[in-house]
Amino acid sequence: MIEPRTLKGFRDYLPEAMMPREKLIATAQRVYRSYGFSPIDTPALEYEEILLGKGGGETDKQLYRFEDSGGRRVALRFDLTVPLARFVAQHYNELGMPFKCYHIGTVWRGENTQRGRYREFMQCDFDTIGTLSPAADIEKALVIHDLFRAIGFDEFTIHVNNRMVLSGLLDRLGLAEHSAAVLGALDKLRKIGRERVAEEIQAQAEATAEQAREVLRLADLSGTNEQMLGQLKPLVAGNETGQAGVARLAELLAAANGAGVAEARLRLDVTIARGLDYYTGTVFETFLDALPSLGSVCSGGRYDNLAELYTTQKLPGIGASLGLDRLLAGMEELGMLPKASTPAQVFIPYFDPARLSDYLRLAARIRAAGFRVEVFPEPKKLGQQLKYADRRGFRVALVAGENEFAAGTIQVKNLATTESQTVPLDFEALQLIATLTDILSSADSAD
Amino acid sequence: MIEPRTLKGFRDYLPEAMMPREKLIATAQRVYRSYGFSPIDTPALEYEEILLGKGGGETDKQLYRFEDSGGRRVALRFDLTVPLARFVAQHYNELGMPFKCYHIGTVWRGENTQRGRYREFMQCDFDTIGTLSPAADIEKALVIHDLFRAIGFDEFTIHVNNRMVLSGLLDRLGLAEHSAAVLGALDKLRKIGRERVAEEIQAQAEATAEQAREVLRLADLSGTNEQMLGQLKPLVAGNETGQAGVARLAELLAAANGAGVAEARLRLDVTIARGLDYYTGTVFETFLDALPSLGSVCSGGRYDNLAELYTTQKLPGIGASLGLDRLLAGMEELGMLPKASTPAQVFIPYFDPARLSDYLRLAARIRAAGFRVEVFPEPKKLGQQLKYADRRGFRVALVAGENEFAAGTIQVKNLATTESQTVPLDFEALQLIATLTDILSSADSAD
Repeated sequence: MIEPRTLKGFRDYLPEAMMPREKLIATAQRVYRSYGFSPIDTPALEYEEILLGKGGGETDKQLYRFEDSGGRRVALRFDLTVPLARFVAQHYNELGMPFKCYHIGTVWRGENTQRGRYREFMQCDFDTIGTLSPAADIEKALVIHDLFRAIGFDEFTIHVNNRMVLSGLLDRLGLAEHSAAVLGALDKLRKIGRERVAEEIQAQAEATAEQAREVLRLADLSGTNEQMLGQLKPLVAGNETGQAGVARLAELLAAANGAGVAEARLRLDVTIARGLDYYTGTVFETFLDALPSLGSVCSGGRYDNLAELYTTQKLPGIGASLGLDRLLAGMEELGMLPKASTPAQVFIPYFDPARLSDYLRLAARIRAAGFRVEVFPEPKKLGQQLKYADRRGFRVALVAGENEFAAGTIQVKNLATTESQTVPLDFEALQLIATLTDILSSADSAD
Repeated sequence: MIEPRTLKGFRDYLPEAMMPREKLIATAQRVYRSYGFSPIDTPALEYEEILLGKGGGETDKQLYRFEDSGGRRVALRFDLTVPLARFVAQHYNELGMPFKCYHIGTVWRGENTQRGRYREFMQCDFDTIGTLSPAADIEKALVIHDLFRAIGFDEFTIHVNNRMVLSGLLDRLGLAEHSAAVLGALDKLRKIGRERVAEEIQAQAEATAEQAREVLRLADLSGTNEQMLGQLKPLVAGNETGQAGVARLAELLAAANGAGVAEARLRLDVTIARGLDYYTGTVFETFLDALPSLGSVCSGGRYDNLAELYTTQKLPGIGASLGLDRLLAGMEELGMLPKASTPAQVFIPYFDPARLSDYLRLAARIRAAGFRVEVFPEPKKLGQQLKYADRRGFRVALVAGENEFAAGTIQVKNLATTESQTVPLDFEALQLIATLTDILSSADSAD
């Protein structure tokens, strides 16, 4: 006998956890498609040299890599950005530019599991590649907005910034050389507060207290987006890059507003920097208003050149990524996930052993009307069958035994309220379907 | 510069290939859910000992295995059946029995790529575990039937058999000891014809010419399912197992018929054996009537004990698997796959550079009405933008330049017929939406 167990840092998904995942993925696909983003996928395994790229990062240590039986050095992808870069470089001519795509897939990192991290998780990216146009940046904000609305959130805030504002400011302060250190410190503002960020800027970026104070004036902006834009202008006065960044932000905020995004959903926040060097323009983070401590659940930004390691073709673009696992954890904390472990709504007990064919036929009829229906596979005691249905979270049971068949009726049992009603049993099932529609009108649309 | 390339036997999915895949997966999920099957998932990586199991099979040689950085012997899953067995053994108490689940995931095998096989592919299984009831077998037939109807097939045939019929016959002929050899030969009937099957039975199963002839009488049944059942009875006369198999088949065919499956869609075929030892009762294969040479696109069967390597709990059940990649290849051959590389239907050129906000607002309005809409990100020449739209397979373009905005109109261009009509441009867009509904009424429901 072999002990059934999963590897450390890996997990199974049981139905209760898998159903909301599937639903969230389907929602993301639907929203991405509604803007004309096309799905792509790349292999889980790639040549090691492709995934290592320039190498040297934290991810290298976490890479699952080995020699395959053909003697090739291979590795499991650790994100979807590197495979996307390789993909676009390889298929550039077939794809045509601009290219809008989404990519939902599993990635693997040998992370330290003590921090509650998993070694296998899913990423959910969407990118617009091959254009410098601000229209692509504006569209990203619209997609994120629609995505969170479609998932079921009314209260969330997309924070938007432009790296050019930060570059402009650091340039003006003579800190341009130390921008990575300053941005790294600034990204911690939410976590460690302004005093410690100021200390870190001084320590890491060889800045004076006065320079650190100037950087932190970014955190003082307040009021409407319009007012914050006004307060921002003097901070980058006389610096072309900074001014261009402010203009881009103003354009994005106005256009997103015009397309229906409320001011409260999209806020200028010049303190978000997104650690990666990689970003050069617009950057986004998204927070749930009811759970800001969760951190950003959808982030991204503009890059100058996606695939410089694999092609001489210059590929600017903008991408963002939905933090699927983090968001699901947040939704669980907020009580937004149903507890059911079945996707079906209607349960038909196999009550009268002689009537299997009738139960199956009735189920087929109700299914054709759009309901999800399960017939229990064994003619066990009714009580046992209803316990099975209760435990899995079915909403309604349709009970017909010998007596009901004789009387030509069926009992419709609302499993939440335990109320029962009796309706005629015929295989057109019109009244039955009307009754189900009534009871299940509040049902989620899981399919 | 690193050459952008994929590993031998691995492939990228570009939008044109990925869109039908996503649609097929969504259809399978929808149908499985409509019968109360719940989604599950397991990790791609498992302990090597779990995946090797008893070991010794063809798959062992194909396994991607290595030592992870923690010194564990690990491997990539090569199917979903072994992980399912481990999963059910591990979570037995949480799951409760019977347990109905589906599992759609990627698997990896270091196959010989010369046979056109890929080393990474997707499996799409659904199982009912923990019951011996024939109701579960009947339901499998109904699910396969609904699945192919939902995918868009009217003409397909589910072939059904019961291993007990074969066991009974072989028992009666004194060939029970050689059943694996006989079943292996019988499975090739379609490919190599009866003469060579007879030869193989004689050679591999130490059978006489007379015994081989008797086995091949299974291939002589003809007529309706009812008639074939009648012809089958004498072949298993006096053998209890064989007779029980015939009775199970008769029950399954009648009940599936009663639940709406036409006789032509579900046919008794006592020549299908499904090579694996593993199956013990009902077995299925599914063929496209227009393309039988493709082989079975959905197969499965009943097993006595799913997880004997991982638990003492006896877990009988029945499972089947949709051959996703094979089916997609068949659908491509039959011209059933759209050629588009965008999921969006409606294209809005960014024509007048001053009107970006208006294009975005209009797109938002149309999107809210349920259409998938893309706004081109750059104010390029109209011709170039329309070429982009044509190449990707958009159905309609909504063209509004300076003149249209001045006149308060918009051109609706049907990109398939190149016909144009002019409708009023306002942001309620009622007439525009009616026009789009009209043109796109034949649109697929990709989302």
